[in-house]
Amino acid sequence: MRTKAAVALEAGKPMEIMEVNLDGPKAGEVLIEIKATGICHTDEFTLSGADPEGIFPTILGHEGAGVVLEVGEGVTSLQPGDHVIPLYTPECRECEYCLNPKTNLCQSIRSTQGQGLMPDGTTRFSMLDGTPIYHYMGCSTFANHTVMPEIALAKVRKDAPFDKICYIGCGVTTGIGAVINTAKVEIGSRCVVFGLGGIGLNVIQGLRMAGADQIVGVDLNPAKEDMARYFGMTDYVNPEDVKGDMVAHLVELTGGGADYTFDATGNVDVMRTALEAAHKGWGESVIIGVAPAGAEISTRPFQLVTGRVWRGTAFGGAKGRTDVPKIVDWYMDGKIEIDPMITHVLNLEEINKGFDLMHAGESIRAVVVY
Amino acid sequence: MRTKAAVALEAGKPMEIMEVNLDGPKAGEVLIEIKATGICHTDEFTLSGADPEGIFPTILGHEGAGVVLEVGEGVTSLQPGDHVIPLYTPECRECEYCLNPKTNLCQSIRSTQGQGLMPDGTTRFSMLDGTPIYHYMGCSTFANHTVMPEIALAKVRKDAPFDKICYIGCGVTTGIGAVINTAKVEIGSRCVVFGLGGIGLNVIQGLRMAGADQIVGVDLNPAKEDMARYFGMTDYVNPEDVKGDMVAHLVELTGGGADYTFDATGNVDVMRTALEAAHKGWGESVIIGVAPAGAEISTRPFQLVTGRVWRGTAFGGAKGRTDVPKIVDWYMDGKIEIDPMITHVLNLEEINKGFDLMHAGESIRAVVVY
Ligand SMILES: [Zn+2]
Ligand SMILES: [Zn+2]
Ligand SMILES: [Zn+2]
Ligand SMILES: [Zn+2]
Repeated sequence: MRTKAAVALEAGKPMEIMEVNLDGPKAGEVLIEIKATGICHTDEFTLSGADPEGIFPTILGHEGAGVVLEVGEGVTSLQPGDHVIPLYTPECRECEYCLNPKTNLCQSIRSTQGQGLMPDGTTRFSMLDGTPIYHYMGCSTFANHTVMPEIALAKVRKDAPFDKICYIGCGVTTGIGAVINTAKVEIGSRCVVFGLGGIGLNVIQGLRMAGADQIVGVDLNPAKEDMARYFGMTDYVNPEDVKGDMVAHLVELTGGGADYTFDATGNVDVMRTALEAAHKGWGESVIIGVAPAGAEISTRPFQLVTGRVWRGTAFGGAKGRTDVPKIVDWYMDGKIEIDPMITHVLNLEEINKGFDLMHAGESIRAVVVY
Repeated sequence: MRTKAAVALEAGKPMEIMEVNLDGPKAGEVLIEIKATGICHTDEFTLSGADPEGIFPTILGHEGAGVVLEVGEGVTSLQPGDHVIPLYTPECRECEYCLNPKTNLCQSIRSTQGQGLMPDGTTRFSMLDGTPIYHYMGCSTFANHTVMPEIALAKVRKDAPFDKICYIGCGVTTGIGAVINTAKVEIGSRCVVFGLGGIGLNVIQGLRMAGADQIVGVDLNPAKEDMARYFGMTDYVNPEDVKGDMVAHLVELTGGGADYTFDATGNVDVMRTALEAAHKGWGESVIIGVAPAGAEISTRPFQLVTGRVWRGTAFGGAKGRTDVPKIVDWYMDGKIEIDPMITHVLNLEEINKGFDLMHAGESIRAVVVY
């Protein structure tokens, strides 16, 4: 079949909207009609050329929602008409990682996914002249239709709006999951969140849901304060307003250090501050942000010997097929909010504008609706 | 009263054996006759002058065992004749830290202890000319008698030999506790221990007790192999024999990375190797060793984002009054061994020789018996 897609022909150039070929699903695969997709910083990271593992031409996008149109041989858990959220971290439920409750990093299709290929080592997308187009993070949601492995699709309820729950495919789950799955924040905790963008806001609403007593937000941009307070931030700190040492300021503000801190900036210096602002004896710091290639975190080992713990999280520690449908339920039940974070809705032709909005810091999330 | 002690008059010089004055126990304090004391690297760290917090003149020593001679006003948990192990990490059972199951870092007397003083801000020891002598780590076990706070004494069974259980006051508990309290190693785990000195050997026997399937030991000195195998090491790695990348070698040897790694070297480069040799998705690395002042650990945040956890431990995460008596029981029941690690027994007059043996790498533990 043919479908319409935003194709990233090379790094550093705008994507081009064009018709592409899409082969049908092979064994274990599923054809999806994408109904909506968010535009995430990771798409930008790859499009810009900063991602050393970027492969072109490709169809970016990994934060989608859609409907199953056709299933390949052997697919048993999905059927046409099912609503799904694509998972860039699949859940095969059979590999060593899936069977370990400590991790969500299913490795079953990792090597082909990293090469922009389906598990059989080929692509389903191609240019009209036959040139293969690589898949992206196993999803490629910047196409109106895509093919994905069954194990990389979370089946969700049919009454949930695509243009909102697409955000659960990455940002929402990453932020809330960092709180619930990775840090396992307890009721009454005091917490600090560095970075009040889309991920940070979702960390904040995760903390509110987990019953945190204090939710300190740190961001250089005071325009972020109102929205963060709306989602549950109790204290706002602008580093430019802090005289002297930032760690000391946060330790005092939290009454001795935070029980949990979260870095949603990707800045390795901020990651250090986040660790050191954690409480002596038991404070844990979780790295969510993606650092520039080659950047390193540092601290004195004394920080760890005196009881702080340094962790990281990917996709919020969520096992996608199991956890994503629950987060959709939380949204539908009003336990979490997404609507105020979807600041811009575009059509596919306007997708490059969505990247411009992100660069300008004007959007929390821009969503493309097909 | 007067007692005999090894007094460290200044940094970088041998200690001098002399008579000193010792005031009796004040309220909440206990007079102890020290029967035996180990010589630990931390004593050497301070005596050498490398410890920026060292205060002189002082009586070093923090790894002892002895008998209660007299209790001060208000002491209820101990009486004359009780056998005790001094605790440089006390357990008041009342502070915010003691009441938190995640930490053992009781803070109730921390500030005075750090200044070489008893909780009332004075010293019990003095030179015969009246010059105060500072306490060390709240213990000062290089004196035949010492005074300590009640909350810093673990009461232990009377049939346990002082010249062995003194080692539980630091090295044994630090190593075994890192496994049991801090890492909480599960049966069947694959583990790597860096550094096969006294702490490393105790990590190894802790791992054996915890039911680890694989216990890899890493040390540049092949003379350490036999003793480490005796305590449970299953694989020995000499970094000098490894061609190429040490992390890759250990990942292969452990079938994908270790579930738990332990640094008992104090070398920050080794700490990095230890973290990176931990298994993707769930491997945890525990820093036990004390690094030189100012040294920093580093890694790429990707190591944490892909599921590794970086921790540290002090006194093996043990709450001393609660856990130390249990470890003495384990020794008496044969669950752990100490005797082969006590390689040298000295009298107080020979104590400087104990430091020489440590420098020369000839002792695992030298113990002074009074
Ligand atoms: Zn994303
Ligand atoms: Zn899997
Ligand atoms: Zn020690
Ligand atoms: Zn306490």
